[in-house]
Amino acid sequence: MTNADFEALARVILGRIFIPLEASGRHVHVTQAQAKILFGHGLTSKRPLSQPGQYLANERLTIIGPKGKLDNVAVLGPERKEAQVEISLTDGRSLGLTPPIRPSGEVSNSPGCILAGPQGQVAVQKGVIAAQRHIHITPEDAARLKVSDKQIVKFQVYTARPLIFEDVLVRVSPNFATFAHLDYDEANACGFREGDLGRILT
Amino acid sequence: MTNADFEALARVILGRIFIPLEASGRHVHVTQAQAKILFGHGLTSKRPLSQPGQYLANERLTIIGPKGKLDNVAVLGPERKEAQVEISLTDGRSLGLTPPIRPSGEVSNSPGCILAGPQGQVAVQKGVIAAQRHIHITPEDAARLKVSDKQIVKFQVYTARPLIFEDVLVRVSPNFATFAHLDYDEANACGFREGDLGRILT
Repeated sequence: MTNADFEALARVILGRIFIPLEASGRHVHVTQAQAKILFGHGLTSKRPLSQPGQYLANERLTIIGPKGKLDNVAVLGPERKEAQVEISLTDGRSLGLTPPIRPSGEVSNSPGCILAGPQGQVAVQKGVIAAQRHIHITPEDAARLKVSDKQIVKFQVYTARPLIFEDVLVRVSPNFATFAHLDYDEANACGFREGDLGRILT
Repeated sequence: MTNADFEALARVILGRIFIPLEASGRHVHVTQAQAKILFGHGLTSKRPLSQPGQYLANERLTIIGPKGKLDNVAVLGPERKEAQVEISLTDGRSLGLTPPIRPSGEVSNSPGCILAGPQGQVAVQKGVIAAQRHIHITPEDAARLKVSDKQIVKFQVYTARPLIFEDVLVRVSPNFATFAHLDYDEANACGFREGDLGRILT
């Protein structure tokens, strides 16, 4: 085997044991109607994200809360049926909001905010959450790692400030690529750097 | 036994197993000479901290980095022999500095910054660090918990977003009160609220 062969093999073996980490910065999901008001048109893709079909939009907006605002916030596409504003607890402090820790999509009884774009503003009644840390897993990887959708696992990260996250939500879908998602508070707490890996503890 | 007796007993038992958490916000230690330049006089105590003899000063200052500044930052007294600026990695991003993760007092090869007070400014050549998470322990508690000074332990926190911190530094001194100290990135990552407890895993 050549060095390149060994490297490719090592990568495959690593990929069967470890899960790559990603840090999700604050971001907003909007509806088509909201995009029209905020930007004058639908979202346009700047670059694809790790999850198939998802993209970072060229459009950016401002989140306004009772105590402050966050400018130049990323918008992720495609548009959704309901707005969702995913921020860290640190961001919540700046805005004067206390986001509940929730899986994506669970926005009942969460605070609202104002979204401001270049063309207009939208008052969102609810949807401000801190995303519960989670692992996107393909059905193939889930079968091999012996985890199932909605399972809560411990997840050990091999980072500069190593730690074991508890209460990590597993989400299994054929539409996913296998990645663990942390917010920036969590990424900083573990000293995350791009390329870092973690492992589900069973 | 009365209810108050039971409560007091429960507190003692809890105190033998668990360690209370505290979140340390960004703060600065300065020398006597620097305090004179920054404030025109030595530090004055606003309120005592959990560690005996340490206090939050009435004086506050601004930290200036290459990319930004942080206003109204806490200063802790009494004055030290060397300046130390303890910030989170999130703060580092705002300032344009990358603080190394260090135990308090280990400031070699760390970045500097400018400190600005109401009376003057001081350029600090080094001393900007992110404090390594650590547990202050009295010798009595250390003996009972079977840990020693400078030991690295795992520390499980019973918080809203539970996790197990690895690489936690134990510091034992008769001058300490027993408390685990996290920075705000770590506090937010685990969903810390005042009164939360943790436990050393052995």
